[in-house]
Amino acid sequence: MFDKIVIVGVGLIGGSFALALKQAGAARTVVGMGRSPGVLARAQELGIIDAVAQSPQEAMQGADLVLIAAPVAQTGPILATLLPWLEPHTILTDAGSTKSDVVAAARAVLGGRIAQFVPGHPIAGRESNGPDAALAGLYRGKKTVITALPENPAASVERVALAWRLCGAIIHRLTPEEHDKVFAAVSHLPHLLAYALVDDIAAKPHADLLFQYAASGFRDFTRIAGSSPEMWRDISMANRDALLVELDAYLAQLTKLRAMLAASDAAALEGVYANAQRARRNWIETIEAAEPRPAQESGN
Amino acid sequence: MFDKIVIVGVGLIGGSFALALKQAGAARTVVGMGRSPGVLARAQELGIIDAVAQSPQEAMQGADLVLIAAPVAQTGPILATLLPWLEPHTILTDAGSTKSDVVAAARAVLGGRIAQFVPGHPIAGRESNGPDAALAGLYRGKKTVITALPENPAASVERVALAWRLCGAIIHRLTPEEHDKVFAAVSHLPHLLAYALVDDIAAKPHADLLFQYAASGFRDFTRIAGSSPEMWRDISMANRDALLVELDAYLAQLTKLRAMLAASDAAALEGVYANAQRARRNWIETIEAAEPRPAQESGN
Repeated sequence: MFDKIVIVGVGLIGGSFALALKQAGAARTVVGMGRSPGVLARAQELGIIDAVAQSPQEAMQGADLVLIAAPVAQTGPILATLLPWLEPHTILTDAGSTKSDVVAAARAVLGGRIAQFVPGHPIAGRESNGPDAALAGLYRGKKTVITALPENPAASVERVALAWRLCGAIIHRLTPEEHDKVFAAVSHLPHLLAYALVDDIAAKPHADLLFQYAASGFRDFTRIAGSSPEMWRDISMANRDALLVELDAYLAQLTKLRAMLAASDAAALEGVYANAQRARRNWIETIEAAEPRPAQESGN
Repeated sequence: MFDKIVIVGVGLIGGSFALALKQAGAARTVVGMGRSPGVLARAQELGIIDAVAQSPQEAMQGADLVLIAAPVAQTGPILATLLPWLEPHTILTDAGSTKSDVVAAARAVLGGRIAQFVPGHPIAGRESNGPDAALAGLYRGKKTVITALPENPAASVERVALAWRLCGAIIHRLTPEEHDKVFAAVSHLPHLLAYALVDDIAAKPHADLLFQYAASGFRDFTRIAGSSPEMWRDISMANRDALLVELDAYLAQLTKLRAMLAASDAAALEGVYANAQRARRNWIETIEAAEPRPAQESGN
């Protein structure tokens, strides 16, 4: 049970965390902080938070747990605002999609109090944003990665893990560096590739004709290009080095496929396609076996 | 009304066409042909076809309309099998995903009787294949592109258009060359990119770790990599020239984004992301306004 939880950023991610803990009966009071008074008022109206903090001092007084759910580049400045009022028993955590940069910013700001910051990343989301998109069930059956620091007391890491488990999440542990390499490959690169394709098509003189014939395969392939450009700019910059490694590997792969195509090497191309289809099918079967709700597959 | 329809290839595409025409009361008899006796027997069991043709001669006798729904590389050989029994009033059509190569093969085989072949391409599908995947409603509200030839009598083109309209499809007209350029950009390239990404990740030494953290964004991005490798090998080869043009444009685009990332040019990267998000949103709004069922958007 948490006596007082502070959510910095009461949108989809922070709001869903608050709703889930309330539904689990695990949060006595939830206080919101954020950039926009309108968003905070809306979150209170929706019952996501019980009160809007009038100052960082008021927010931090007696707080058990503080979740920072904001674009990753804002983590350092937010921690700097909270630090003067940080009580010794308070645990800080975050929900950022990158971890090495967040940890570096936290170390720079918190210094000797870094032990109080337990970094995390819930692997869940929706295309819509803001408090109206928040759902108590958003994290149910999803992974939350905790990238604990050597300085974190085991009890603090366990408290953060408990909060996410109460949201229905399954806890995984990685180092911040492992985390960033993994997500560069399976999340950050696909986002960049999807944005790149839509921008490429939109820039063509006959873009209107092309979009007219784009069907559900294109819709799914580019769905992640509907995500927030500001958020993904921050993620791309924060995880630049790992993303460049993955992008270069993918460019090499595309260059290899281009050569197969130019040489009309149908067998080689089919080999790549078949290997990908097989790997994807194995993956889908694994997640279908592991996750409570079935993987949805539909359309062309 | 069609007196006798022949379906060559009674899988998802051919089977759905047959079911839709039967449901519309527009087909008196549907006869199936194909490579696999087991598939044909199953299609008959499912009520997709009324009979299995014992020979091309029997199939073609008195046929109004013949739909070839097979991998595009088989179009020429299939037409060669049918040609000796082709009656003057029979209209031939196809459902291939590429058109220039199909038209070239049809011209080579049919010669002076090319006027009887009206090429088409229904823009619909599912990930599952075979007669069990066939649905009477597969084409409802979807586009079918007819790439009519200068030799086709207007009445024959109108007959093919009528059949697809009876399936619920909306008819569009393009030349074979326009068709192939458009679909290289919005369909063939995304398939190649999705296969390339999954194969790239599967080949890494820590592939298991990576797949473990792949979430719904990755699932949607790579859904088309679940498609038939044989079919997409044929499509890639058949539309090689147009696909190479699109692939080169995309490689140039990725190289541009790589430079932005390497230079930490956050504003330029955000510009590309924002442009893509805007273009995609406009496109989704346009299809939502035009299509009977809403575009589904969900997940992370």
